[in-house]
Amino acid sequence: MTTSACSSVAVLSTIPRLSQHLKLALPNVSFTDVPADDSTRSRLSNAEIIVADANLLIGHVGNLPTTKWVQMTWAGVEGFVAKLRDSKTTPPNFQVTRFSGQSFGYAMSEYVVAQIVNFERDQRRQYENQSRAKWEQSGRVSDHRRLCELTVGILGVGEIGGFLAKVLKTLGARVWGMSRSPPAEISEKDFKRRNLHHLDAHVTGASLAKLLESCDYVVNVMPSTDSTRGLLNGDALKSCAARGSVFVNIGRGSVIDESDLINALERKWISGAILDVFENEPLSEHSKLWSFPQVTISPHVAGISKPEDIAQVFAANYVRYTAGKSLQNVLDHNRGY
Amino acid sequence: MTTSACSSVAVLSTIPRLSQHLKLALPNVSFTDVPADDSTRSRLSNAEIIVADANLLIGHVGNLPTTKWVQMTWAGVEGFVAKLRDSKTTPPNFQVTRFSGQSFGYAMSEYVVAQIVNFERDQRRQYENQSRAKWEQSGRVSDHRRLCELTVGILGVGEIGGFLAKVLKTLGARVWGMSRSPPAEISEKDFKRRNLHHLDAHVTGASLAKLLESCDYVVNVMPSTDSTRGLLNGDALKSCAARGSVFVNIGRGSVIDESDLINALERKWISGAILDVFENEPLSEHSKLWSFPQVTISPHVAGISKPEDIAQVFAANYVRYTAGKSLQNVLDHNRGY
Repeated sequence: MTTSACSSVAVLSTIPRLSQHLKLALPNVSFTDVPADDSTRSRLSNAEIIVADANLLIGHVGNLPTTKWVQMTWAGVEGFVAKLRDSKTTPPNFQVTRFSGQSFGYAMSEYVVAQIVNFERDQRRQYENQSRAKWEQSGRVSDHRRLCELTVGILGVGEIGGFLAKVLKTLGARVWGMSRSPPAEISEKDFKRRNLHHLDAHVTGASLAKLLESCDYVVNVMPSTDSTRGLLNGDALKSCAARGSVFVNIGRGSVIDESDLINALERKWISGAILDVFENEPLSEHSKLWSFPQVTISPHVAGISKPEDIAQVFAANYVRYTAGKSLQNVLDHNRGY
Repeated sequence: MTTSACSSVAVLSTIPRLSQHLKLALPNVSFTDVPADDSTRSRLSNAEIIVADANLLIGHVGNLPTTKWVQMTWAGVEGFVAKLRDSKTTPPNFQVTRFSGQSFGYAMSEYVVAQIVNFERDQRRQYENQSRAKWEQSGRVSDHRRLCELTVGILGVGEIGGFLAKVLKTLGARVWGMSRSPPAEISEKDFKRRNLHHLDAHVTGASLAKLLESCDYVVNVMPSTDSTRGLLNGDALKSCAARGSVFVNIGRGSVIDESDLINALERKWISGAILDVFENEPLSEHSKLWSFPQVTISPHVAGISKPEDIAQVFAANYVRYTAGKSLQNVLDHNRGY
């Protein structure tokens, strides 16, 4: 870890206006845009700090001899983690920090609230009624459950999932949370930072079936790791049949194979699904998922990476970096996120 | 005010299962369903307590000689208030309590969050894309503002509006509130109960234009009273042109004439509208409002009256009534709500 200011930061990203926002956040630091082309490797070879989209940097991880720190522009870094493991640079000579922070909590929470409300109140039908100038109060448009009548389970109560719990509690819901570590093993500081005191019930993976049986909505917020991939495969979602839960996925599509998800819908283990992420993205136009009336699909936009948010997160870590302090949101190679 | 238990409560309502829920909440009280027909008057003539839909009771307000207390099943009671004023029973021999309470705060807040998110993220287009099996991230679907980037103004920060402020703050928004009384004249207890400490700015009607200029969304939550009817008529919404605010109405349609609202949309003083209530309900199929692409219409369902909630509110007041304590949510004939 250096304690001197870094002369230049390389930026390898397709996110519009990212370097402008970085300059606004840190006016005294020089940021250099690196194009994704034949020159990328040589341009990165001297870089001490890199801000990068995971997919653009992935081909260069073995060729970053001088790099000390890579700031990712995405929250999900599973492809990058896999590449690091395969390459001979594991553990690499540089630290990797994920793009995390409050903005994802806000974005994903408002997405989940809106989509649950849309599902319960049949927003799709309301738009159809409007297009036909039809004042129609029948069905779920008027006879619906509100969040204050629902129990929501969150798979993965890290920073984002915990904040979602807080938002749902504010709107009156009962909230279950599932985490890797049992509550007793989470430090008091982490517990509070992750808003876990808002949970009505807090379980680990050993009680997954119980959570699925107890919740009207099950929201997956987990990253893609060795222990989450395929976690809901097979007949895992059969436990949802008890309440006809709706499955919401804003974590990663790899938590359940598309064919198993379709099976759960067809067998009515789950009464619906709200899907922002998929086993294969973009979702094929031939996928059966598009056509279920009880399924809502969005194209991986629940929590978008905004350049101003990335700049803010990077700037906070940059101050720590130059002061020789440990960085925040450092990728843990063992956990995979 | 009596201190003895009331032998029987008359229920005049079309809300399904209302008397069942009342019986569940108060098993030792006798509830009698009164039909809305020629027998209504005679059946109500001996009633000490009545639980009623405002529209069904309105024709009988001059003929309730023994009635001490009327519990309304709706939050909005402007028609009833007008009738009481016209009749010779003003102030009447009975107290009127509105149906209020936490459930409306929950219901209306989740509606507002969902509709703002739907507007910002173009949910209508997302449903269309899904119907064509189209993975499409362009436009507002991916390039949108989140609540944490928005300023929301609430016209009417009573119990519901104040709770909405709390929810929006939790999701990161900046929130302005407008109330009849200046902040300094609101008691500490009321201030806290109404969540007014969550407001970033708190103004009265004198600063309406400033609020409209400063907010990305303007949410009307006010009841229909002499001082709110027509408040946004004429060119009042011209102040919204500064930010192209979106107007949200979950209060009462009477706050703006339909023709003036259409004018504000056509002149682009407001960039959109989310409307649950209207000057005339049901909204005529010939209304121009249905066809604006930037307008979302719902048929007065933002906050529905659920029988279990009415029963809960009635039961709490019934306990106070039999104990000789003052009732909650008593209609103030001067304010009109």
